[in-house]
Amino acid sequence: MAHDIRVVTEAELRGVVTLNKEIIRVIEKAFSALSDGGVIMPPVMSMEMADVNGEVDVKTAYIPGFDGFAIKVSPGFFDNPKLGLPSLNGLMVLFSATTGMVQAVFLDNGYLTDLRTAAAGAVAAHHFAPDVVHTAGVIGTGVQARLQMKAAHIVRPFQRLLVWGRDAAHAQACADDLARDLKCETRVVEHPGDLVMASQLVVTTTPARDPIVKARWLHPELHITAMGSDQDGKNEIEPEALIKADLYVADRVAQAEKLGELRSAMAAGIWDKGTPPELGQVITGRSRGRRSDAEITIADLTGTGVQDTAIATHVFERLKNGTTGTVISA
Amino acid sequence: MAHDIRVVTEAELRGVVTLNKEIIRVIEKAFSALSDGGVIMPPVMSMEMADVNGEVDVKTAYIPGFDGFAIKVSPGFFDNPKLGLPSLNGLMVLFSATTGMVQAVFLDNGYLTDLRTAAAGAVAAHHFAPDVVHTAGVIGTGVQARLQMKAAHIVRPFQRLLVWGRDAAHAQACADDLARDLKCETRVVEHPGDLVMASQLVVTTTPARDPIVKARWLHPELHITAMGSDQDGKNEIEPEALIKADLYVADRVAQAEKLGELRSAMAAGIWDKGTPPELGQVITGRSRGRRSDAEITIADLTGTGVQDTAIATHVFERLKNGTTGTVISA
Repeated sequence: MAHDIRVVTEAELRGVVTLNKEIIRVIEKAFSALSDGGVIMPPVMSMEMADVNGEVDVKTAYIPGFDGFAIKVSPGFFDNPKLGLPSLNGLMVLFSATTGMVQAVFLDNGYLTDLRTAAAGAVAAHHFAPDVVHTAGVIGTGVQARLQMKAAHIVRPFQRLLVWGRDAAHAQACADDLARDLKCETRVVEHPGDLVMASQLVVTTTPARDPIVKARWLHPELHITAMGSDQDGKNEIEPEALIKADLYVADRVAQAEKLGELRSAMAAGIWDKGTPPELGQVITGRSRGRRSDAEITIADLTGTGVQDTAIATHVFERLKNGTTGTVISA
Repeated sequence: MAHDIRVVTEAELRGVVTLNKEIIRVIEKAFSALSDGGVIMPPVMSMEMADVNGEVDVKTAYIPGFDGFAIKVSPGFFDNPKLGLPSLNGLMVLFSATTGMVQAVFLDNGYLTDLRTAAAGAVAAHHFAPDVVHTAGVIGTGVQARLQMKAAHIVRPFQRLLVWGRDAAHAQACADDLARDLKCETRVVEHPGDLVMASQLVVTTTPARDPIVKARWLHPELHITAMGSDQDGKNEIEPEALIKADLYVADRVAQAEKLGELRSAMAAGIWDKGTPPELGQVITGRSRGRRSDAEITIADLTGTGVQDTAIATHVFERLKNGTTGTVISA
């Protein structure tokens, strides 16, 4: 009883799916669904392979009403750069939510994950950043630093962009790329404090284990999206900052408690705000967002299976009647 | 930085991989490795989608020294038969254990799972059944009932085979298939007690939630392999039987406690044997197996990620220089 399965490579996906308003809407819808209830999203499956300096995470989510559900596998092998290979990799498999049969295999090497992660940053910026952002800042200099700023620029078209990274050359390369792509004034700063204090919108995209952003740098009219922490032990924002902010919101509280900035604040014993709201609750109006330009807001994004299911379903819808990819009868 | 990924369908796999001594040795080696230590095997990721009568399980394991690790996804959608489709499906993805990059996608619809499950039954029969098995019995009438008997016949070439199932027509079809394939005297019995009492080797392959095999049917020179239970709530063997047996062994204690026959015995409050041995410990001589023909033994197989990693790595080794499948550069 063979059926058709569409196998699509990273290069093919890059040809048809890019970061734009449509993808941001798809991811916003995923968070709405998460807040609407009925979503089933098991804890992340995680396997650390210390002797090869590798790890692998598996995420999934079932969203009622969606035609499919994705299983997303993200390996990270941190000795790869020595071999001239990227550390991060992986694929998404889309299954029919009616029959469980494989519909598509996206051999994306993490590209769709990059997109859905950046899109979540845009959703957070859309709901939490002040209406007018003159200056945006990004902490971190990798692929996601670039994508986060491109995504943020779609919803808050800032004129000035600051970049900070531990490696000045990497920071300059990131700034140059973004200056070219976004056509805005872009500058590398020497100290992350300078960046935070001068920006209305900051995105942190690092694997930091000691917080980079200090609470004392927070100021009115600031929104920070922290998207680097996705594991126990990672921490980009000083725990006191979460207390000092007028509003802290998580993509998924159950994950942020274990893997996000919220974990560090709880571990520090200073978290006193009870159960925080989730991004989807703000999108759907169940919880409040920014109340005035003067407020300080923080969004803690750990990355959720609903984003994977949403982007995989969306891409499959777009491709299913076309000729992109290889159709295999299995 | 595209790399080659081999995509292989069920039909292609069936052409090159079948149940034989080699596959049984591969699975035996997997259990040895599990006992040797260093294996990393996270708990099964499980997602139940009640509103579509579906579920999906994800298994994986890292075995030091193996070139790859598999992520295996097994959806079960139990309304599929109404659509003329099989309930069980799925695929295995093999990743390099050095770089984390995808090496192969086996679109096997569960075929490799069927093989590795049957092979585990043969490994259990090899280590626990009496040296001479005249009569084997299988409870259940599906794909796995057939495969378990074929696998058992490889290690214990019995002359007589009994089959019992709730549906007499299904039982007859299963018996007819096995009579043809194994060329042994095969008979459907009306009552599972008749089957257990007359056999030296019994395999249970059902999704039963009320135990089928009663403790009072146990007799000297009997080995039972229970492979149906793989979920909280499933139970094929009366809990008292696990106490009555001279030896109870699990494929993985941590799983059997949650998903296997051991779970039911513990839930019944009658388990008094402490931590039972694992199959791999018996294979490697760390724990004792059957001590005499007269003993009664029970093996509780819940299905482990090491089996998936072992069979996927083995199949990839066999295929990697050949032309089977479709090679996609991604």
